[in-house]
Amino acid sequence: MDELDIEAVAETTLDEPVLIEGLPGVGHVGKLVADHLLEELEAESTLVRRIYSQEFPPQVTVEDGVTSLTCAEVHAVTPEEGRDVLVLTGDHQAQTNAGHYVLTDAFLDVAEEFDATELYALGGVPTGELIDEYAVLGAVTDESLIEPLEDVGVEFREDEPAGGIVGVSGLLLGLGERRGFEATCLMGETSGYLVDPKSARAVLEVLEARLGFDVDYDPLDERADEMEEVIGKIQEMEQQQQAMDVPNDDDLRYFG
Amino acid sequence: MDELDIEAVAETTLDEPVLIEGLPGVGHVGKLVADHLLEELEAESTLVRRIYSQEFPPQVTVEDGVTSLTCAEVHAVTPEEGRDVLVLTGDHQAQTNAGHYVLTDAFLDVAEEFDATELYALGGVPTGELIDEYAVLGAVTDESLIEPLEDVGVEFREDEPAGGIVGVSGLLLGLGERRGFEATCLMGETSGYLVDPKSARAVLEVLEARLGFDVDYDPLDERADEMEEVIGKIQEMEQQQQAMDVPNDDDLRYFG
Amino acid sequence: MDELDIEAVAETTLDEPVLIEGLPGVGHVGKLVADHLLEELEAESTLVRRIYSQEFPPQVTVEDGVTSLTCAEVHAVTPEEGRDVLVLTGDHQAQTNAGHYVLTDAFLDVAEEFDATELYALGGVPTGELIDEYAVLGAVTDESLIEPLEDVGVEFREDEPAGGIVGVSGLLLGLGERRGFEATCLMGETSGYLVDPKSARAVLEVLEARLGFDVDYDPLDERADEMEEVIGKIQEMEQQQQAMDVPNDDDLRYFG
Amino acid sequence: MDELDIEAVAETTLDEPVLIEGLPGVGHVGKLVADHLLEELEAESTLVRRIYSQEFPPQVTVEDGVTSLTCAEVHAVTPEEGRDVLVLTGDHQAQTNAGHYVLTDAFLDVAEEFDATELYALGGVPTGELIDEYAVLGAVTDESLIEPLEDVGVEFREDEPAGGIVGVSGLLLGLGERRGFEATCLMGETSGYLVDPKSARAVLEVLEARLGFDVDYDPLDERADEMEEVIGKIQEMEQQQQAMDVPNDDDLRYFG
Repeated sequence: MDELDIEAVAETTLDEPVLIEGLPGVGHVGKLVADHLLEELEAESTLVRRIYSQEFPPQVTVEDGVTSLTCAEVHAVTPEEGRDVLVLTGDHQAQTNAGHYVLTDAFLDVAEEFDATELYALGGVPTGELIDEYAVLGAVTDESLIEPLEDVGVEFREDEPAGGIVGVSGLLLGLGERRGFEATCLMGETSGYLVDPKSARAVLEVLEARLGFDVDYDPLDERADEMEEVIGKIQEMEQQQQAMDVPNDDDLRYFG
Repeated sequence: MDELDIEAVAETTLDEPVLIEGLPGVGHVGKLVADHLLEELEAESTLVRRIYSQEFPPQVTVEDGVTSLTCAEVHAVTPEEGRDVLVLTGDHQAQTNAGHYVLTDAFLDVAEEFDATELYALGGVPTGELIDEYAVLGAVTDESLIEPLEDVGVEFREDEPAGGIVGVSGLLLGLGERRGFEATCLMGETSGYLVDPKSARAVLEVLEARLGFDVDYDPLDERADEMEEVIGKIQEMEQQQQAMDVPNDDDLRYFG
Repeated sequence: MDELDIEAVAETTLDEPVLIEGLPGVGHVGKLVADHLLEELEAESTLVRRIYSQEFPPQVTVEDGVTSLTCAEVHAVTPEEGRDVLVLTGDHQAQTNAGHYVLTDAFLDVAEEFDATELYALGGVPTGELIDEYAVLGAVTDESLIEPLEDVGVEFREDEPAGGIVGVSGLLLGLGERRGFEATCLMGETSGYLVDPKSARAVLEVLEARLGFDVDYDPLDERADEMEEVIGKIQEMEQQQQAMDVPNDDDLRYFG
Repeated sequence: MDELDIEAVAETTLDEPVLIEGLPGVGHVGKLVADHLLEELEAESTLVRRIYSQEFPPQVTVEDGVTSLTCAEVHAVTPEEGRDVLVLTGDHQAQTNAGHYVLTDAFLDVAEEFDATELYALGGVPTGELIDEYAVLGAVTDESLIEPLEDVGVEFREDEPAGGIVGVSGLLLGLGERRGFEATCLMGETSGYLVDPKSARAVLEVLEARLGFDVDYDPLDERADEMEEVIGKIQEMEQQQQAMDVPNDDDLRYFG
């Protein structure tokens, strides 16, 4: 295998499609959105490309005893309502700095092959605390893209995200702009500690408003409820421990 | 030397051979099996290829004062009973992520050169505890390979191994499948703490049942007995220490 | 994108220009000088080249919601007084050893394109303690360059900097010499703990004396005053804590 | 600069020269030998090649204010007595695994250019304790090389060095053998904690006996005496501290 190998699984023609990227990252927000879209629009989706690369970890996943080589996948989706989309997802990011550049260029190659000129890179932005109101932050390659996003609730803040945007999501904007794409990064606020379906829902609602598709949110809400239960149990355990007031080793040290 | 250099040590013709890979890994299970096979079938074996690579550590081994450059070796074996095999072994894995891809492709090149279309990648799967019954887990590139393996005792479990299969063993399946190989990974359960000849025996028995060769297990059992003695002594020492009930620093802390 | 991509933003002709490099480093001394020069000479400056590279981190910065791909920038400056200069700056160093070589060669390519044959690499040299007199150390590719620098106050010490000069600044001299450049490294002494505008001022004064430009130091002095205030507050806090004489855990341990 | 750049500083013709490698390593044994040889045989030496490489650290050294780019150097030496030699030395090893392969191949290219077919790689082997009798261990690419080395006092031990030989020294044998060199590694025993001129002397004596040159050992012995003084002072300080019997924190913990 060469450093990079794009497998053409199927061909299809799309009408001015938009690339949506949802690889693993903070709170798995981007991946949750991409996976949810593909599940809800399964009937309208076709797997069109697999991208294999030495930049991915040297690994196969195993499901029911059968292995699959690590790759990224691109599905072509023609929803009944709204614009055509290419959904890019996978289980891994690149393993090196240069690898992010190599993979991002490959993803943009695929996008161009299907005549996409717009893209949305999805991710989470960690706040470090539990969240009540799930804001969605935006970053764009061109100022003209800001207003229509603000109209659907996306927030643009002066100095956020403070550290810039790293990895494939960042480079899809950085390299995408240089190749003529109109590119947007949507970042759902998330605590950063847990897989966050609520943050994913907030991002998905923005996408829906912009692209016009129509998906059911119930499965995502169910996952959110499951997460709530997990969080509730953790909080309960913490409170019980405080109530019992068990001295720990550090306390005991001063009683010696 | 180029990044990769395959040295043709000898030529031979094999009849539909099966590649067996046993590089170092968890419990040294794969390497123990490969080494044992080559020792037992020494008279029927020929060293046919050495694979040198910048992906291996920059190192020579020294035996009786004479050095050998780190490499992987492929032996052609024509046992009296059973199928012809190519045995791949060595002392090192690749040192980088991309290196695993490079080496695996080289190993598959050698396999193709000798007309192999099937392969077995061998390894250990760590359980974290001492083991009574040595199960052998399987993973395959195609569902059709499962049944004949289950017939000889290989177990296929829904979500195991949980983290997938990494390194050359994983890629022999991942890249092998893409190049048309029927590939199987056999993983002997092992504690993960020690070299494990018993786990190696369990894997070897599966191979024997599938490929029809006939080897003596005594040397492997002797190594297993030696390991048992080592384990026994460790356990004895632990019990003595507990019996003496020596307080350690952590205990003393609360008596101050 | 290739490993390296030099974007020609604008063309201009310079008269025997000198390349000045100010990338991030110890005390941000070099970058402070480069940024200050560009701000003060904004009217006489033109952005001429952007250098993108896989050797930079895979990252975009975000300002007011609009992203920019990590790069280094070269501005052509034709000051009213003094020699023409090319100012090289950016937000990042290379991420690998080999990357420093790759980027430095690219920077020298740009310098040659604009007919520069002299260069100044700027940086800080850490002393580990707060500084009263800000000395500027020098290192050069040819002995003949020492005297005119000593005439403007640059110090050359027998064994300093002890560990040599690493990164792009070092290689601009090392590779620059091999390509025929007269190259100088100016290193402002700095504690090494904080961004240091005073050290930057000391370096800038040397450059001004050598190259003849004329810039206002007030903004740099204001930043220096701000840093002084920060340092003052830190020292005050330390003194208060000592005055309160709060026993800490380590003290308590001996009272048990 | 390319990944590798061999600069031809001067040309000369040698009579069946032997390459001697002394790069930095354990106890700096190899480098001490190479540097001492070049100092003692300065009148008969010519710098013939500089090897620059991206595999070296991105660094210049500074001496009296003048910089030199990191490189390895090869000197051609025609001593009044004994065989012609090529002495390879430098201040750095390669920074990556693959880099050791790249540099070693470059060094062998230079050796071939000067018609060398034999080589000695020099180094130290750490014992972990102070040494009275400085043995020199050997490793060779061919068994036939052992006897003449044993005749001059080199020891060949069954399983030493246990971990093989890593880095350029190891690869000069491993890659050298594949390119037809008769290659020997001489390893002076050394504690491993300090620069060790005594170990270097032991190695140099072996070389002298094999190659017939005649050098003065006094400067090496003086450096050895200096090191002895340093060691003496360290031991004295340790004894004083024990005599004063100062309880430390760990002791105090049990008195609480």
